[in-house]
Amino acid sequence: MPLRRLSILGVGLLGGSLGLAYRGVASDCRIIGYGHRRSTLQAALDRRAIDEAYEDPAEAVRGADLVVLCTPVGLFEELLTRIAPVLSPGAIVTDVGSTKRSVVSAGERLMPPHARFVGSHPMAGSEKRGVEHADPRLFQGALCILTPTPRTDPDALATVDGFWRSLGMRTATTTPEDHDRRVCDVSHLPHAVAAAMVMLQDDESLPLAGKGFLDATRIAAGDGALWRDILTDNADNVRAGVARLRERLDELDELLDPQREGDLKVWLDDAARRRSGMTRGG
Amino acid sequence: MPLRRLSILGVGLLGGSLGLAYRGVASDCRIIGYGHRRSTLQAALDRRAIDEAYEDPAEAVRGADLVVLCTPVGLFEELLTRIAPVLSPGAIVTDVGSTKRSVVSAGERLMPPHARFVGSHPMAGSEKRGVEHADPRLFQGALCILTPTPRTDPDALATVDGFWRSLGMRTATTTPEDHDRRVCDVSHLPHAVAAAMVMLQDDESLPLAGKGFLDATRIAAGDGALWRDILTDNADNVRAGVARLRERLDELDELLDPQREGDLKVWLDDAARRRSGMTRGG
Repeated sequence: MPLRRLSILGVGLLGGSLGLAYRGVASDCRIIGYGHRRSTLQAALDRRAIDEAYEDPAEAVRGADLVVLCTPVGLFEELLTRIAPVLSPGAIVTDVGSTKRSVVSAGERLMPPHARFVGSHPMAGSEKRGVEHADPRLFQGALCILTPTPRTDPDALATVDGFWRSLGMRTATTTPEDHDRRVCDVSHLPHAVAAAMVMLQDDESLPLAGKGFLDATRIAAGDGALWRDILTDNADNVRAGVARLRERLDELDELLDPQREGDLKVWLDDAARRRSGMTRGG
Repeated sequence: MPLRRLSILGVGLLGGSLGLAYRGVASDCRIIGYGHRRSTLQAALDRRAIDEAYEDPAEAVRGADLVVLCTPVGLFEELLTRIAPVLSPGAIVTDVGSTKRSVVSAGERLMPPHARFVGSHPMAGSEKRGVEHADPRLFQGALCILTPTPRTDPDALATVDGFWRSLGMRTATTTPEDHDRRVCDVSHLPHAVAAAMVMLQDDESLPLAGKGFLDATRIAAGDGALWRDILTDNADNVRAGVARLRERLDELDELLDPQREGDLKVWLDDAARRRSGMTRGG
């Protein structure tokens, strides 16, 4: 059933894309945006990503069927606290956060009895920032991970699942714990390592960087505040990932021995085969 | 002055692209290919990347003005040994190898008195393999690093420089030692780390990989034998790079402390700014 009133809290690249995408599938829905900067809200209105704009999140969620938190995850708890008193009966709150343990725990703790929280992570994004780069096709074909818990309302879960599917996403379900561990490996850890790779370069080497380096480090251009929140929130998994990377680097160190050339080729071939076999999942 | 006879030893992606590209700028030049597999040579002939094909490198270089080594670097020394006795007076030999210290040293040691060696590294490539993916525009706009030594003949250097420029490349000159250190940082180390990143994934996490992960690890799909040669040949620099990466990971580990959130943001913003400011160099 299409929504009548969708509230998007945070109208950057993701929130803006969400507004544009949902307008494309439910033209009668009123789309409301919250942002803490007037200029961002105006840009979102200009792009028709939203119909109404508020600088107070409580005003932005009044009467909404579905509220989607689209700010950096570090702001979710404050937003949830501010919107909880004014949510409509039956309102559902979800989010686009890249970490799920702390978000789902805060969502369940802060929801009033008449509203319901469901954690979501639409795995779509870009290193670009701002509503000016919003793209209604951002979600098309990508994976959205839903992270219900024993406390999650099944109807609310079905509604949120249907919402993401209506935007062309595939959906999957896992626990918040499994989500944070697995997404760390394929997203948070690679981001941190790409940033480290950029930081270790000196000014002499950087001008030699070609397409391979640019591709390999593109994710490191992402928003610092957003990624600080993600890495800090998922610090235990990031640290465990870094430890596993260190083990692989130890392995590589040994394989660089001229005596181990054959094993190095097997290792590189194995990585090449695994990578070549991959297609876009999340 | 255009070449009359160009010999390409190794007609894979790079050698094949070289044949196609040079044919575009010097249609009268006869282009000769050597390969150790008949099927590869036939594919190169079919694509018109070469005019004549030989399974013996000595036959392939007879009468050539310029010989370009395009096999994996691990085969260069054997090739140089086999072609040295039959090179024409005044012939110039260069290469496309990704490492330069060992290559230039072997080239200078193995050249007969009447021939000249100049080390080159055209920084163009792809994770794809084989002449079927050869592309005449591969070199366009990319950087070629020339690595002369005090023993390099200035005329030969100028000829090789002109050759790469005729294909639309920009050229730069550095020592073999500086080349190997700097290219390690922006190419060899990122390749090794991308392979390690692929290898540490488990089967549960890989399906969640999105565009960011695919971009970040694309280089790891490169040919295992080629990269084994490069990493082994440049092992000292790769190890030093890994050590510097470890220092950065230590730094990250500290910044994941909740008390250090502000510093983590500065670190990530710094990486994002450096990366955003980059355009294709090599």
